[in-house]
Amino acid sequence: MTKNHNLMKIYGTHAVLAALQNKRRAHKELITTQYILNEVKQILDISNIKTSIKTPKELDILCPNGVHQNIILLTSPIITADTTCLKTITQKEYSVIIALDQVTDPQNVGAIIRSALAFGVDAILLPEHNSPDETPALVKASSGAIEKMPVIKIKNLSNTMKMLKEHGYWVIGLDSNARTTIDKISFDKKIVLIFGSEGKGPRRLTQENCDLLIKLPTTDLVESLNVSNAASIAMYEVFKRPK
Amino acid sequence: MTKNHNLMKIYGTHAVLAALQNKRRAHKELITTQYILNEVKQILDISNIKTSIKTPKELDILCPNGVHQNIILLTSPIITADTTCLKTITQKEYSVIIALDQVTDPQNVGAIIRSALAFGVDAILLPEHNSPDETPALVKASSGAIEKMPVIKIKNLSNTMKMLKEHGYWVIGLDSNARTTIDKISFDKKIVLIFGSEGKGPRRLTQENCDLLIKLPTTDLVESLNVSNAASIAMYEVFKRPK
Repeated sequence: MTKNHNLMKIYGTHAVLAALQNKRRAHKELITTQYILNEVKQILDISNIKTSIKTPKELDILCPNGVHQNIILLTSPIITADTTCLKTITQKEYSVIIALDQVTDPQNVGAIIRSALAFGVDAILLPEHNSPDETPALVKASSGAIEKMPVIKIKNLSNTMKMLKEHGYWVIGLDSNARTTIDKISFDKKIVLIFGSEGKGPRRLTQENCDLLIKLPTTDLVESLNVSNAASIAMYEVFKRPK
Repeated sequence: MTKNHNLMKIYGTHAVLAALQNKRRAHKELITTQYILNEVKQILDISNIKTSIKTPKELDILCPNGVHQNIILLTSPIITADTTCLKTITQKEYSVIIALDQVTDPQNVGAIIRSALAFGVDAILLPEHNSPDETPALVKASSGAIEKMPVIKIKNLSNTMKMLKEHGYWVIGLDSNARTTIDKISFDKKIVLIFGSEGKGPRRLTQENCDLLIKLPTTDLVESLNVSNAASIAMYEVFKRPK
């Protein structure tokens, strides 16, 4: 958590309530209407957080691009470059780690974080380059899931894949040109799932480092799915595996 | 097609190229840069379409809210109130129809249309009230799929569910409070899948008209998934059923 001293804005009821309960964030200010502040106080102890009362119109000015639902939180980001938690995760008997290779849309990354929490994923890895920052849109799309799911910015995806393989992970890339469909394989106990950009899949070097490339069974009427939809299906299939 | 005399804007390379090839649309004008126009002409015969050359900055002004990729098409909408095609669809031996009950976000509806085409769905039904119109964002999110997938606005979801049941469809609603998980059931030949708003599921009256309510197997760490992710998983499971 040491590297993120800057502040970010989180908006939307679900996202803000989840963030307020995250002790890994350093909250600066909660900005909302008197009515909503009263409601928040009934369910959470926010006595140690600075609050400001604004009208809905003033909130519109503070947050012109998003549906803020009259509640905005200024706080510290939690996407981290600290890989310490991977040490514990890699010791598990069953583990799933997601890596996103060039998935740039914050809405998609937020939705993937939400599905990852639903399907028992241990951590999400984002390469430092060509991954979105922890933007308000990403946090809102995760619908609170980012508060519970470790999301880690890594320097070099190839090195991390190598390290995870050494810890017994089987590295699987999703690519629409693969020969094997996901419903035809049985998953190992420790899995890394790699998703790339829509249509293109993971980059060539990333693909070369995969133990296996798989695709989803589909009609031939579309080139690819939305990446968060494809990723959710893959995570769901791994979640269903017998333990 | 008779009811849609108004014009709409479609932007983005993939969405516009797909729309240009759709003979059910009446194209008014293609607005793009000289460079892109030359490229489009190499792959499509657009000799009967009015074209206008603009600079990227002029295109920004025409389309300030979306990533237009320097190509904009003014054309007629294709989401229709004409249910004629359902007559043919309901005669099929195997059929899947999707109904969206209060799914209001155009991005989600667009992504669902894209996944529906990937997973062999025959048609998507949108109730007239509380469904998004055919907005540019919806069309772009469908990534061309809306040009091939019948999307039909219906007056009354309950009446349509009743009609489909009379044609041998088994109506299944996805609801996170259901007892049965989707991976534990075997699907019939003719299925209607109903998706509601995130967290809430289909409305009570819609649920009462379902033959079965199912949920996705998940951890208890999230209340719900993004609706397009949940819908994609359900469509994928039905697509995999033996035929």
